[in-house]
Amino acid sequence: MFGERMAAAVREVGNCAVVGLDPHLDKLPAPFRERYDGRSGLDFRVEAAQAVLEFNRIVIDAIAGTVCAIKPQYAFYEALGSPGFAALEETCDLARARNLIIIADAKRGDIASTAAAYARSILTPDGPFAADAVTVNPWMGADTLDPFIDVCAATGGGIFVLVRTTNPGSALLQHHGEPAAAHVVAQVLADKGASLTGESGMSSIGAVVGAMTGDEAKTLREMMPGAWYLVPGVGAQGGSATDAVAGQRSDGLGCLVNSSRGVLYAPELERAVYDDDPGAWIAAAAKAHAERFSA
Amino acid sequence: MFGERMAAAVREVGNCAVVGLDPHLDKLPAPFRERYDGRSGLDFRVEAAQAVLEFNRIVIDAIAGTVCAIKPQYAFYEALGSPGFAALEETCDLARARNLIIIADAKRGDIASTAAAYARSILTPDGPFAADAVTVNPWMGADTLDPFIDVCAATGGGIFVLVRTTNPGSALLQHHGEPAAAHVVAQVLADKGASLTGESGMSSIGAVVGAMTGDEAKTLREMMPGAWYLVPGVGAQGGSATDAVAGQRSDGLGCLVNSSRGVLYAPELERAVYDDDPGAWIAAAAKAHAERFSA
Repeated sequence: MFGERMAAAVREVGNCAVVGLDPHLDKLPAPFRERYDGRSGLDFRVEAAQAVLEFNRIVIDAIAGTVCAIKPQYAFYEALGSPGFAALEETCDLARARNLIIIADAKRGDIASTAAAYARSILTPDGPFAADAVTVNPWMGADTLDPFIDVCAATGGGIFVLVRTTNPGSALLQHHGEPAAAHVVAQVLADKGASLTGESGMSSIGAVVGAMTGDEAKTLREMMPGAWYLVPGVGAQGGSATDAVAGQRSDGLGCLVNSSRGVLYAPELERAVYDDDPGAWIAAAAKAHAERFSA
Repeated sequence: MFGERMAAAVREVGNCAVVGLDPHLDKLPAPFRERYDGRSGLDFRVEAAQAVLEFNRIVIDAIAGTVCAIKPQYAFYEALGSPGFAALEETCDLARARNLIIIADAKRGDIASTAAAYARSILTPDGPFAADAVTVNPWMGADTLDPFIDVCAATGGGIFVLVRTTNPGSALLQHHGEPAAAHVVAQVLADKGASLTGESGMSSIGAVVGAMTGDEAKTLREMMPGAWYLVPGVGAQGGSATDAVAGQRSDGLGCLVNSSRGVLYAPELERAVYDDDPGAWIAAAAKAHAERFSA
């Protein structure tokens, strides 16, 4: 079960740090960027996807054993079309071979056979993208979650449902009504997650919960005691380290804190690539991220 | 602008019928299915994606000139991994060559640079999937829409925001609060859509609105007078033809009614494939769909 595997992975590395693999093409180090700059159309996409895959290989080798999971952001692979998705498939293979848990940040949300198709492609071991968990959007209702949960029960996969994000406009719908819509979703997850909760007390049905100040984090944790939180918004997105783990349980489990740009895209990295040792720089950045979020 | 192009397309064919290209592998006619049955892994996906592309080519040739648009459902291409996405890219090329408007049913929803990456890959002419419009999920707030709207303003693309769906669980969040959350979204779209409204009175910022009985459809139309509605849920999903166009404007514009299984997957089609003339059967089914929704 995903909830248990996640607990074991966090305990093994001793932290709850996740690294986001978000290939912003204009932020890759110059020697990678030069390979697709000036090209166009399919040529551009094929070359860029190969550069992304090579960069991801360096990252995965550098962070394996230091952090518990990676979070590829699907948008940046989709931007490269089918070559980008091929690079994502291979990235997942590389991560799996290094025992990194894969959280597919695809934010899928649909119903019936359509939701089932998304769930199978991402959460089954013989699916093309074969991740451990996927982010899901609840706007269409509880029946958007059920096909994913069915696949989780069958394959041992997990989901992170968008409960409460902290982008500037997030309150419009998530805080709408009384109780707040986010709390309606949290209650659904608590109910549905109970049957997929293991010995560690953690469930395979998790939530995306942004870094936030204490009170709301506490309320949500009381509503969903066994939910893994996927916490974006640290570093470049502005959340503080304290806020990021405001929903942590007393046993040190509960929060998974993502950092992407902080680990992958620093000016220092470009120099490291020229010095032919980008892996060492990324390993150090991942270690710093892991130390901020020791569990 | 998308709103105007859509109006011109509806007027040219004289109906508001859309055909959904949802390649359910187990529903393709037997001669197509036999090409991938029994295979596994990448072999399976490559063979199935080629069968899907050939099937789509027959469909596109059969329906061009009869209906105004196609709506590929991304989940079924994603299920085939990168070969599936390559088939989707080629399907979009084929549809564009036959002057069919392409509505990408991807239900994307994210923020900032991530949303911008999705918008560019689907809504820009040199993006890999290069459609005319894309479905978008509003749960993360108005800032999930802005990067898409910016790209629409730049490239002439359009969006259909999930305002009110009619799946069994849809009321949980969409009807939550007072006013209902769906109406909160409708108001945002009305405000944001005004600047992208052309001479026909139709905007590039549209809405997904399920087939529903008169009162709610009327309320939503009053709130969003210039929004194109993308209406799923006719035929296999149960909506009636009258409900499907309950939000139609008095000028005959406003609703785009999708049918997928009704046109593509009927027992008669399998026989037609054996008789070597599947195109004629699909053309007749598309014509029947178009006649139900003449505009």
